[in-house]
Amino acid sequence: MSEDSMSEDAAQQARLARFQPLSGMVMPRFAGLASLMRLPVLEPAAAIREGVEIGLFGIPLDSATTNRPGARLGPRGVREQSALMRLVNHASGVSPYELCACADLGDVPVNPVDVADTLARIEAFAGPLHAAGLTMLAIGGDHLVTYPLLRVIGARAPVGLIHIDAHSDTADSYFGGARLTHGTPFRRAIEDGVLDPRRMVQIGIRGTLYARDERRWALDQGIRIIEMESVIAQGLPAVVTEARAIVGSAPTYLSFDIDSLDPAFAPGTGTPEIGGFTSREALFLVRALRGLDLIGADVVEVAPPLDPGGTTALVGATIAFELLCHLAEARARRSRQG
Amino acid sequence: MSEDSMSEDAAQQARLARFQPLSGMVMPRFAGLASLMRLPVLEPAAAIREGVEIGLFGIPLDSATTNRPGARLGPRGVREQSALMRLVNHASGVSPYELCACADLGDVPVNPVDVADTLARIEAFAGPLHAAGLTMLAIGGDHLVTYPLLRVIGARAPVGLIHIDAHSDTADSYFGGARLTHGTPFRRAIEDGVLDPRRMVQIGIRGTLYARDERRWALDQGIRIIEMESVIAQGLPAVVTEARAIVGSAPTYLSFDIDSLDPAFAPGTGTPEIGGFTSREALFLVRALRGLDLIGADVVEVAPPLDPGGTTALVGATIAFELLCHLAEARARRSRQG
Amino acid sequence: MSEDSMSEDAAQQARLARFQPLSGMVMPRFAGLASLMRLPVLEPAAAIREGVEIGLFGIPLDSATTNRPGARLGPRGVREQSALMRLVNHASGVSPYELCACADLGDVPVNPVDVADTLARIEAFAGPLHAAGLTMLAIGGDHLVTYPLLRVIGARAPVGLIHIDAHSDTADSYFGGARLTHGTPFRRAIEDGVLDPRRMVQIGIRGTLYARDERRWALDQGIRIIEMESVIAQGLPAVVTEARAIVGSAPTYLSFDIDSLDPAFAPGTGTPEIGGFTSREALFLVRALRGLDLIGADVVEVAPPLDPGGTTALVGATIAFELLCHLAEARARRSRQG
Amino acid sequence: MSEDSMSEDAAQQARLARFQPLSGMVMPRFAGLASLMRLPVLEPAAAIREGVEIGLFGIPLDSATTNRPGARLGPRGVREQSALMRLVNHASGVSPYELCACADLGDVPVNPVDVADTLARIEAFAGPLHAAGLTMLAIGGDHLVTYPLLRVIGARAPVGLIHIDAHSDTADSYFGGARLTHGTPFRRAIEDGVLDPRRMVQIGIRGTLYARDERRWALDQGIRIIEMESVIAQGLPAVVTEARAIVGSAPTYLSFDIDSLDPAFAPGTGTPEIGGFTSREALFLVRALRGLDLIGADVVEVAPPLDPGGTTALVGATIAFELLCHLAEARARRSRQG
Amino acid sequence: MSEDSMSEDAAQQARLARFQPLSGMVMPRFAGLASLMRLPVLEPAAAIREGVEIGLFGIPLDSATTNRPGARLGPRGVREQSALMRLVNHASGVSPYELCACADLGDVPVNPVDVADTLARIEAFAGPLHAAGLTMLAIGGDHLVTYPLLRVIGARAPVGLIHIDAHSDTADSYFGGARLTHGTPFRRAIEDGVLDPRRMVQIGIRGTLYARDERRWALDQGIRIIEMESVIAQGLPAVVTEARAIVGSAPTYLSFDIDSLDPAFAPGTGTPEIGGFTSREALFLVRALRGLDLIGADVVEVAPPLDPGGTTALVGATIAFELLCHLAEARARRSRQG
Amino acid sequence: MSEDSMSEDAAQQARLARFQPLSGMVMPRFAGLASLMRLPVLEPAAAIREGVEIGLFGIPLDSATTNRPGARLGPRGVREQSALMRLVNHASGVSPYELCACADLGDVPVNPVDVADTLARIEAFAGPLHAAGLTMLAIGGDHLVTYPLLRVIGARAPVGLIHIDAHSDTADSYFGGARLTHGTPFRRAIEDGVLDPRRMVQIGIRGTLYARDERRWALDQGIRIIEMESVIAQGLPAVVTEARAIVGSAPTYLSFDIDSLDPAFAPGTGTPEIGGFTSREALFLVRALRGLDLIGADVVEVAPPLDPGGTTALVGATIAFELLCHLAEARARRSRQG
Repeated sequence: MSEDSMSEDAAQQARLARFQPLSGMVMPRFAGLASLMRLPVLEPAAAIREGVEIGLFGIPLDSATTNRPGARLGPRGVREQSALMRLVNHASGVSPYELCACADLGDVPVNPVDVADTLARIEAFAGPLHAAGLTMLAIGGDHLVTYPLLRVIGARAPVGLIHIDAHSDTADSYFGGARLTHGTPFRRAIEDGVLDPRRMVQIGIRGTLYARDERRWALDQGIRIIEMESVIAQGLPAVVTEARAIVGSAPTYLSFDIDSLDPAFAPGTGTPEIGGFTSREALFLVRALRGLDLIGADVVEVAPPLDPGGTTALVGATIAFELLCHLAEARARRSRQG
Repeated sequence: MSEDSMSEDAAQQARLARFQPLSGMVMPRFAGLASLMRLPVLEPAAAIREGVEIGLFGIPLDSATTNRPGARLGPRGVREQSALMRLVNHASGVSPYELCACADLGDVPVNPVDVADTLARIEAFAGPLHAAGLTMLAIGGDHLVTYPLLRVIGARAPVGLIHIDAHSDTADSYFGGARLTHGTPFRRAIEDGVLDPRRMVQIGIRGTLYARDERRWALDQGIRIIEMESVIAQGLPAVVTEARAIVGSAPTYLSFDIDSLDPAFAPGTGTPEIGGFTSREALFLVRALRGLDLIGADVVEVAPPLDPGGTTALVGATIAFELLCHLAEARARRSRQG
Repeated sequence: MSEDSMSEDAAQQARLARFQPLSGMVMPRFAGLASLMRLPVLEPAAAIREGVEIGLFGIPLDSATTNRPGARLGPRGVREQSALMRLVNHASGVSPYELCACADLGDVPVNPVDVADTLARIEAFAGPLHAAGLTMLAIGGDHLVTYPLLRVIGARAPVGLIHIDAHSDTADSYFGGARLTHGTPFRRAIEDGVLDPRRMVQIGIRGTLYARDERRWALDQGIRIIEMESVIAQGLPAVVTEARAIVGSAPTYLSFDIDSLDPAFAPGTGTPEIGGFTSREALFLVRALRGLDLIGADVVEVAPPLDPGGTTALVGATIAFELLCHLAEARARRSRQG
Repeated sequence: MSEDSMSEDAAQQARLARFQPLSGMVMPRFAGLASLMRLPVLEPAAAIREGVEIGLFGIPLDSATTNRPGARLGPRGVREQSALMRLVNHASGVSPYELCACADLGDVPVNPVDVADTLARIEAFAGPLHAAGLTMLAIGGDHLVTYPLLRVIGARAPVGLIHIDAHSDTADSYFGGARLTHGTPFRRAIEDGVLDPRRMVQIGIRGTLYARDERRWALDQGIRIIEMESVIAQGLPAVVTEARAIVGSAPTYLSFDIDSLDPAFAPGTGTPEIGGFTSREALFLVRALRGLDLIGADVVEVAPPLDPGGTTALVGATIAFELLCHLAEARARRSRQG
Repeated sequence: MSEDSMSEDAAQQARLARFQPLSGMVMPRFAGLASLMRLPVLEPAAAIREGVEIGLFGIPLDSATTNRPGARLGPRGVREQSALMRLVNHASGVSPYELCACADLGDVPVNPVDVADTLARIEAFAGPLHAAGLTMLAIGGDHLVTYPLLRVIGARAPVGLIHIDAHSDTADSYFGGARLTHGTPFRRAIEDGVLDPRRMVQIGIRGTLYARDERRWALDQGIRIIEMESVIAQGLPAVVTEARAIVGSAPTYLSFDIDSLDPAFAPGTGTPEIGGFTSREALFLVRALRGLDLIGADVVEVAPPLDPGGTTALVGATIAFELLCHLAEARARRSRQG
Repeated sequence: MSEDSMSEDAAQQARLARFQPLSGMVMPRFAGLASLMRLPVLEPAAAIREGVEIGLFGIPLDSATTNRPGARLGPRGVREQSALMRLVNHASGVSPYELCACADLGDVPVNPVDVADTLARIEAFAGPLHAAGLTMLAIGGDHLVTYPLLRVIGARAPVGLIHIDAHSDTADSYFGGARLTHGTPFRRAIEDGVLDPRRMVQIGIRGTLYARDERRWALDQGIRIIEMESVIAQGLPAVVTEARAIVGSAPTYLSFDIDSLDPAFAPGTGTPEIGGFTSREALFLVRALRGLDLIGADVVEVAPPLDPGGTTALVGATIAFELLCHLAEARARRSRQG
């Protein structure tokens, strides 16, 4: 090993030592500031400067919601519940904090009364992070937040997408022409060429429709829609196999809408649809996607005011931890291969 | 096609055009008056006059409840949550509003301090609707509301019944002689000869018993009771097959008690029993009953004050939509055959 | 009395007979459709056609909220709780339904993802009503909804305003330039010349400030701000006397923000400030304003998801009933004088 | 002192020693069985046998409610919160348990689906207690429960009544002839000759009316109605003076409806009316009635499902403790005078 | 049959007749005092004296909780919800009250500010019961309460244990040396020699870890840990078979932590972990353990303040009833064999 | 002005510029990390190093609670709601951030299962801060947290105390000898000589008593107890005058127990007593104490799980802001005088 790589390795060890979650053995989990996963908090610029590798942050936007609001409080709710996450994934044995330097970068400073301005702010926040090579794990906010993130991440080449959700979110517009809503992000991203519809799979779609051919456009683009009824019929392992085949080994983004779960498991969301995943199935599904070349992810539509008990945010925090494990492994893999 | 049938067809098209739910694209789903499925609201007499084919209405009675009350607010709660139902059943592709003219007929004007008087009022409300040929979809209220509906619908010939519930509701009396309670409707209906016990199946029954032979009378009448343990053991598809065989192709009523679901999925009900159906199973079960000659249905025991989050009423509204699809198809089938 | 006036009187009697709330003695108050005050529901065009004199309607907008959302569900919540309002004001003996034909005109079809578009929709809804001579009583929604209403009502001449609120809502902009928010309506209205700041009084203002001279602009315009501390010091009767003097006998609008109450009395609101009015004081204040030439009014910022118990909406409904009494009396007065 | 009175005194001391609440210093107040005031629990017959002097019991009826139900859970809720009551009234220094042997006699076994039957059961429960000389303190249940209690207590001579409430509860009937509701108990009691309307005062009445002359009958009987507006205008001390003059020194019953409080203080009730008493005023009012010849009392309309936080039941328990102090003092006074 | 055994049998019949739950047909289930299973309430000494065979009692301790508190209200919550339990297990046909004299012995008088003192009090409460031959069914309280119970029951010989939980609870210490917490009971019990780790099986363990080898000590002792992932992979029947083999036919204790369920089914607990059992699975699992030589059991970690709806306590009460059936059968078996 | 003082002044200006709350105009108040008053977060050692003058911190202890727990989540709840506090006190015009460098120092790392250990940890946390000259504003936690703070602050000379509370908290012990509970802090502090009972006044005391002479010890020490009834009788201004006279101009600590408010205003607390202060009175009382030589303060007993709506924590945050203004003024005064 060369001296350079030795010192680089030492620097990385120092970084990893610095970016550890606060232990529940030192500060009880009900105590202390509520940062994401109890990680150190840094401004984005500082994070870049200090070599943070995975940046977790919130996007407290719900102004693009077409039904009940509340997801603007999602980052706050997930932060609070993420205090319950410990260090090691008991199913896989992975600890993301041994692999990458992770930090809570705070929230994007949204403009809640102006959707378009907020999208610009999200891009302005995420752009430099992406340019500096950070991997991003975002906590919504409503589902429109995925659109500007894809614009940043897919700017050079369209990305693949695993999209776990009750809704297809590929409508053209709402309310007589509104094109920027939480029901349209993927249509916009495909139109912008930052998302590859043939490397895109939607899992868990269900609920009543406005029109019988509502999903026609999505299917025409080549998106694979695996409705909940298909999931039940073929079983989750087969769904996973198909999903992995669709996105392949190329760079892939994962967007997890909490309303993919049944409202019994995640009542705190704006547009619930009964008949969804259990928490156990959601964990199984996300875990089974281990090994993909994940380059970014988000958890969206957690609306804490609609679930005072906090369970929905706990699900969101747990899924975020599982995604963090995948992102850390994928990044470590790329480093080793790089 | 004769001129008459042509003009009749045109009239039906006009009716269908008139009786469409308010679109969520025009008026967001959180806005506007909360009618059932966002349908037009008419007094029963007007509905008969205007040719409404399926009448949805509420029966806000919970005075026959033996445990916790609250189901009197069921119609209000289901109305609110039914705003989330769109137009087309995504699993079957059916849109009931293309098949039948549907309307919200308001609520039966119950007398909350007098159960017997309320039963008379229900019959007075439902009788003319039935006489005019309307199909009825009722939202309870406690389970006693099914009894007067069966008295109206089964007056000429006893009907078959699919009864999805945690409780058998075939007790003789409560509290030393009270015969009109939400635990006795089916015994009363069988005694009155309006319900055929040999064409009756109960699915999901569970919970502790007052006495070991509590279900003796029901079994003696020929009612088939499929307890939750049997459902688990044999699987829902087999249960459906058996249920369909029991009721056959003759006219059948379907009564769906929301406490058939596990309280995790439907906490807002007066007499919860753990170990019940998931929402997904309930959807599967109801959908699998497609094609029966359904002539009426109800969803009962939604008690919104016991579930401030509204999930229970959302389940109730979704099940009601599924039943509406079946009722519309059955009615259209009968029309074609008629 | 001439024949014309006789027949006009008969027509008015018929109208009043038609536009009566549904009685709780006929349909219990927990039952039936939830319309405002249990009044008949008409589309705006039909209301104009049928001679409705006071139109109650909802404006389910909360997209201009700078803090917690939820007021988009205000109209639905107030509709539900307004079922508890009976016919006669027990303090004044006034029954608005004996004086004017009142109806629920439904909700403005807002565009929740576009504030500016929604403002245009509100003007398009209210404009024809105002042109046809209807008096309007609006249920918000966040406080920005008052702005387009003032633009309609004050188009020909700026109106006076009694503004009961915890916040002055006269900021210039938020978040680096956003000018259409629930913190800016009165500044916009004054800039547009539809609101006369010298005939404007704000009562109950309190809470921490962003800057020491935050209210400078408002004071410079001539707005009288009676902060809560002044209310306590001088007493409500003196406040009322001053407020009446400020607006005088000219046409006046009344805007009631539910957050003027202490959060103990009205927890369901987006930006609560402790130390507010009790319900009893709010009733006293509103009742003491009897006899003004009120030409329109609103109740805003009721956010039901933040108060599952419904008390906030009950306060909103009760204040709306008190305002309805005033509006009906003022209109009847103008009719007699006209 | 004669031997007899000495041994009687010793027996009373023994009784008092036996009928003490469980101390929070021995069993923390969150622990142990929830009996009223943590008193020993006895069947009515045993209570009579053992010389209990004041019997506390619940009447879990809400079947006479015309609006939202839930008061059937009032006794359970008040039992739980009454664990917070300690032994001594800090304002008066009275400890009821030093004066009288008090016990929790359980609940009347109501028939929730039959109001008339329940009234008979209440009389059957209370009759023997009254005959045996016990003083009764009842926890409702809806307000109709006062009617059978008055029938028992006023059977030989009509009693006076202090009635603290938002509603007059002197209607004739509801829903087209229903005469036994929570809005009619005092009319029935006066008709039966068990309540003296000229020794009856109602305090705190408010809320909208169905008809302008709704309270005509009550006024015609001679009932003094002190509306909330009068309470505010003249102040509570003057109200107390007048109330004491009306009932005088003859035997008097006190009925406390929790909805006399503002819903901010007591949200858990079926028919809330804003603008009510604060808890502090309610305490002041009840305490100021010390020294009357109280012969029975009740606290009604606590509906715990409508207030999950339990504050309403805590208010109910505290008022019940204050009334218990009065009842114990009045009884001790009568004993000394006897 | 000898005269002695005849009279003994008669005495047992009398005891069984005396120790029956209050029927919901006599006193509705929402009424009356909330005792465990509506059983008669006796002090421990009286229970011993009167020949009670199974003592149910509460241990309202949550001072050993490391995360959110609230389980101190568990006994109160389970008492209330246990009113919904009827007499007969509908799955097995067993009625425990026909087999054994059961009673509610109240709560252990805990010292909430001193964990060690509370442990001593639990032993002082349970010791005499065990010595007198009573079988104990305890309602927690946090999981540390199992430790003193095992110390009593396993004093003469270490017992086997079926431990259903999300957490292994075999840590050594928390917060720098705290050894008596709800995360350490089984380590302490094994160290004390009252629990046999080789006859101990943990089912449902899941959630993130503080360290990769966190469960090393437990595995080294010979404890069998069946993580939730294994449960899913092999299925519950296989898990049951293995668990039965591990504990064998020797005396076994069963400890049921409510957080073994998914928070959708049991949100009211201090340390929820998503991905847990459904209620139906929990019932299946517990029922499938019928026939073991159960000598004691507990249900712990129900925290009612974290679930105002009461579902968690209902699950706790139902599981407790199932365990009561097993305990009664096991005891009856031992009697017959004895 | 000397160079030194010039540069010192410049340093102070730089410090003040650095320690400003995050503006709601930049980051909406629902967004971003929840620190106390949105202030920068520093470890205690860093705060000392950087010249922080007022340290705000949490003490998440509720293990000394004798009734319902939950106050361990008080710091988290107050942090979240304190985001609603802006920069300037609108009543006094004071902005604490212009006077002193303020920061959020995080939470004391409590040991929730060991009260005595936690007290040592609090002293270890507060001691160095006090030694370095920082003023402390603590957020509880239950009321025992005041005891170690007084031990630190009063170590050299006993301090005076303004104690606003429903309870006297001067008991000797609970549960047979427990001396460290939230009902005993002031007795312990007086015994330790760190609190001067003759310069101590308690305001708002009320609620039932365990014994008639329960407050004897406190009175014997010379503590002035102003019970709520006295507050009502003499009025708050007189109370303030007396309180100011009692503590005089010497160093004084202020301890604010949220249960001094009525549960309508602050339901989220473990031991509510009805009949308490309104929020408006609490603000009046605290504001009227301006000008004292306050040297430290706390707000305790906010228990968020008992108030999911968050109002109690909002009251706590607002009172904390008012206290911060007083502390900053007092400190600035001492600086000028120093």
